[in-house]
Amino acid sequence: MDKYQEKFMQKAIELSIVNVATGGGPFGAVIVKKGEIISDGTNNVTKKNDPTAHAEINAIRNASKKLKNFSLKGCEIYTSCEPCPMCLSAIYWANIDKIFYANTRKDAARIGFRDEHIYKELSTPMKKRMFPLIQVNIKDAKKAFELWEYKKDKVSY
Amino acid sequence: MDKYQEKFMQKAIELSIVNVATGGGPFGAVIVKKGEIISDGTNNVTKKNDPTAHAEINAIRNASKKLKNFSLKGCEIYTSCEPCPMCLSAIYWANIDKIFYANTRKDAARIGFRDEHIYKELSTPMKKRMFPLIQVNIKDAKKAFELWEYKKDKVSY
Repeated sequence: MDKYQEKFMQKAIELSIVNVATGGGPFGAVIVKKGEIISDGTNNVTKKNDPTAHAEINAIRNASKKLKNFSLKGCEIYTSCEPCPMCLSAIYWANIDKIFYANTRKDAARIGFRDEHIYKELSTPMKKRMFPLIQVNIKDAKKAFELWEYKKDKVSY
Repeated sequence: MDKYQEKFMQKAIELSIVNVATGGGPFGAVIVKKGEIISDGTNNVTKKNDPTAHAEINAIRNASKKLKNFSLKGCEIYTSCEPCPMCLSAIYWANIDKIFYANTRKDAARIGFRDEHIYKELSTPMKKRMFPLIQVNIKDAKKAFELWEYKKDKVSY
């Protein structure tokens, strides 16, 4: 581990500690570009009544807002815990280059968080999951996809 | 398929079609509680510079804000396309009861979206993924988890 990795992870950990004391969840994250922290985030699900307000999601939203760009290519994320599948997928969608984490999904499970359970569900074929999805086929279901396919000025991501 | 499922899915599909015409992505979703639509969402990743702004995430945020509750127990979501792993995980975190979808992740892949790729990555053991995570162990990494474990007035979710 180099001293930069240690410094940025230390910041994510500090955020996670302070966040518990101020009524949030025990998670913190920072996003780094060219050796500088450009955003941070903590878990505020219950404080903000937003089930998507995890540390990494908040850090990504803050970074994209700051850079005015939906792509965070060239950025790294340091998070106090292995991202849950929601946050890990958001990191992929955001094109972040590298992910550093400290605690694991198993550590999170030990204090009552469902990350490990959701990972298992997502890796299970749809019809064998505890929580199945129901397909509803209706006319025009594919119309938006066709419009998208042939749209000349679309912005892909 | 009952007429309610058809009606709510029709609404999600309409949102997806209109959204392409207004510069968004080809996805729409609605959240239903006790037979009524309580929120909707469309994909505005590129319009809003927010890589997390998928249709389902936006619909969940809007519903939680409206109900002033981080739990959407008792709600159903109707989405024009099988949720990506970010959105599906958000649906789990939000405690939504049922998921209805029309198009599939393979349909989304055909028009250039990475849902299928991200599902595959998440199902692959961490060290075998194309995009590996790097663990950084530092002092105090678990302090927030310990504080959480023994916090008496915590709000779990």
